[in-house]
Amino acid sequence: MKVDGRHFCSIWVDSDGWTVAAIDQRRLPHEFVVAKLTSCEDAAEAIRSMLVRGAPLIGATAAYGVALAMRRDASDAALERACSILIATRPTAINLKWALDEMRKALSPLSPSARAASAYVRADEIAEQDVAINQAIGSHGLNLIEAIAPRKKPGEAINILTHCNAGWLATVDWGTATAPIYLAHNRGLKIHVWVDETRPRNQGASLTAWELSHHGVPHTVVADNTGGHLMQHGMVDLVITGTDRVTANGDVCNKIGTYLKALAAHDNGVPFYVALPSPTIDFSIEDGRQIPIEQRAAEEVATMTGRTQDGRIETVRIVPDGSPVANYAFDVTPARLVSGLITERGVLQAEHEALAGAFGERADR
Amino acid sequence: MKVDGRHFCSIWVDSDGWTVAAIDQRRLPHEFVVAKLTSCEDAAEAIRSMLVRGAPLIGATAAYGVALAMRRDASDAALERACSILIATRPTAINLKWALDEMRKALSPLSPSARAASAYVRADEIAEQDVAINQAIGSHGLNLIEAIAPRKKPGEAINILTHCNAGWLATVDWGTATAPIYLAHNRGLKIHVWVDETRPRNQGASLTAWELSHHGVPHTVVADNTGGHLMQHGMVDLVITGTDRVTANGDVCNKIGTYLKALAAHDNGVPFYVALPSPTIDFSIEDGRQIPIEQRAAEEVATMTGRTQDGRIETVRIVPDGSPVANYAFDVTPARLVSGLITERGVLQAEHEALAGAFGERADR
Repeated sequence: MKVDGRHFCSIWVDSDGWTVAAIDQRRLPHEFVVAKLTSCEDAAEAIRSMLVRGAPLIGATAAYGVALAMRRDASDAALERACSILIATRPTAINLKWALDEMRKALSPLSPSARAASAYVRADEIAEQDVAINQAIGSHGLNLIEAIAPRKKPGEAINILTHCNAGWLATVDWGTATAPIYLAHNRGLKIHVWVDETRPRNQGASLTAWELSHHGVPHTVVADNTGGHLMQHGMVDLVITGTDRVTANGDVCNKIGTYLKALAAHDNGVPFYVALPSPTIDFSIEDGRQIPIEQRAAEEVATMTGRTQDGRIETVRIVPDGSPVANYAFDVTPARLVSGLITERGVLQAEHEALAGAFGERADR
Repeated sequence: MKVDGRHFCSIWVDSDGWTVAAIDQRRLPHEFVVAKLTSCEDAAEAIRSMLVRGAPLIGATAAYGVALAMRRDASDAALERACSILIATRPTAINLKWALDEMRKALSPLSPSARAASAYVRADEIAEQDVAINQAIGSHGLNLIEAIAPRKKPGEAINILTHCNAGWLATVDWGTATAPIYLAHNRGLKIHVWVDETRPRNQGASLTAWELSHHGVPHTVVADNTGGHLMQHGMVDLVITGTDRVTANGDVCNKIGTYLKALAAHDNGVPFYVALPSPTIDFSIEDGRQIPIEQRAAEEVATMTGRTQDGRIETVRIVPDGSPVANYAFDVTPARLVSGLITERGVLQAEHEALAGAFGERADR
């Protein structure tokens, strides 16, 4: 998508043909900085420090990390070492394991002399496949948005609410939840997006708002508390979020607070959709209540980082010193509250049969 | 309640017998500063700038503002002038108008020479009446908490979630939503409070957490997004919030985000109670949908103020420059989601008959 009028992906191979370039997402929205990754360790550190984040982008970064490792040393030992360094960065990320398995599968049978070139080819494919999946999600989601358009008065925008960042920055391009939005906007539909701030890490305010702003999509940032009020007053036509994991029965694990928006959507008859690439479906878990919920550092809630009026980046504490803080990172939205799952193979009911029917080859594994 | 082991009210008359002292709530939680108000204009500015906030405390501050005015000039013209300066500070606050009407009623019939002393007496009474109402709310709410205690294993805390600050800082003492909590804690019940941060103004993180911390009530600050997850996992026994206005049918207007917590409580069978002094009931409005919702400055969402590691108070911007922001301050929780209203005359069903039955003298006006 666009940044200052120019098309960008979140990760790419630089013009020298081997350095990996990635947007440093820790610096957004206040600074646009491109980081150069020149070693497997750089790639691992980029994932660990959340210079890159979002399941699909983490997968692509890990694949390029293997390619950077192969360029220095393409031995079997170096391949295994690269994979074990990279898998340790965010051990619960589904796409990370998938991408490393793919790289190992592609490179192991080759002679070391052929591995570096092939690693870049396979990493490029993984990145391109992500873009293709998101475009497919976009076109299926576009149908949902287009179905709302006839109900609107001339000049009236279709209002979509989203939570967290399942945008192009979380993927290689297009995003998952945002792919239908960008596609609809590019087609000339009048779209307006309510962007949940998404405390505590503020991915909505700092990443989704930044993305939409640079691509020219009208939007408004709101506190996470606001969505229910907006839905009560007919100001939301559709909710689309991403997800970190969908269980076999269609339960949706996503950023903390998603469940509250799903409840409000249900209470007000607003459709609530979740966009996801199929690798996000975890057929090994039947029910969302079985997903362990990551607890993250208290500092993410107790402090906030931003830009001072004179341009410095500062972190300020907002909770009194004596007060404990808890930071649950995700919650589970029960399938009964989900209107549908927007996948690369179409919009599916959030239920076992529909998911297994569309992705039988994965369900049977 | 206690601050550093000493009992404080949010407002009081100083030892000189006439200066009005109030805790400067804009400086909390990082600095504890007592402001001295020596004129009606000081009192008006304290309300306007939110040095004091919370409907009952605004009412008491306005009453003392009239007393300060009478001390300088007790003429009829000065009385009217004081009331008109004070009413203009937060024109929608119900208690502000009530307190000024009370002061006018008490002082108008008196000769100017008697007004200053009587004004302090009446202002003291208004403050004391607030304390008495909150203590009554506390004792009715305590019954609800005590009813939960037998279900707990030995040593297990009763978990109460609250949103925003309906604490002693919002009143003269005890608070509304917190009165049952302080009373239960003082009686030796094992209580733990989940404190919603309450974006965008962070009254939970900066005021409720500070209050509870100083009074020694165990608590944990969470992002507003968290409450649904906590309730899904049986980690909340009871929700108690305050309210800015309850309509005749029992709909509850309160800080934005309250509705989302009520939905989650309903979905998980968690009792959802609202604590209020009866002047908060607006019998002139039947239905919450008729309440106009205040929109406040975008800056409250786009920026955050806190303390840097080296102790400076800084305001940082957290939303990209190009992104619009909306700031709806309140939402309405429909009566159907409210388990009961904790008033000074007991716990009432959130419905017209129950409210009119308990407060018939006001319903008939």
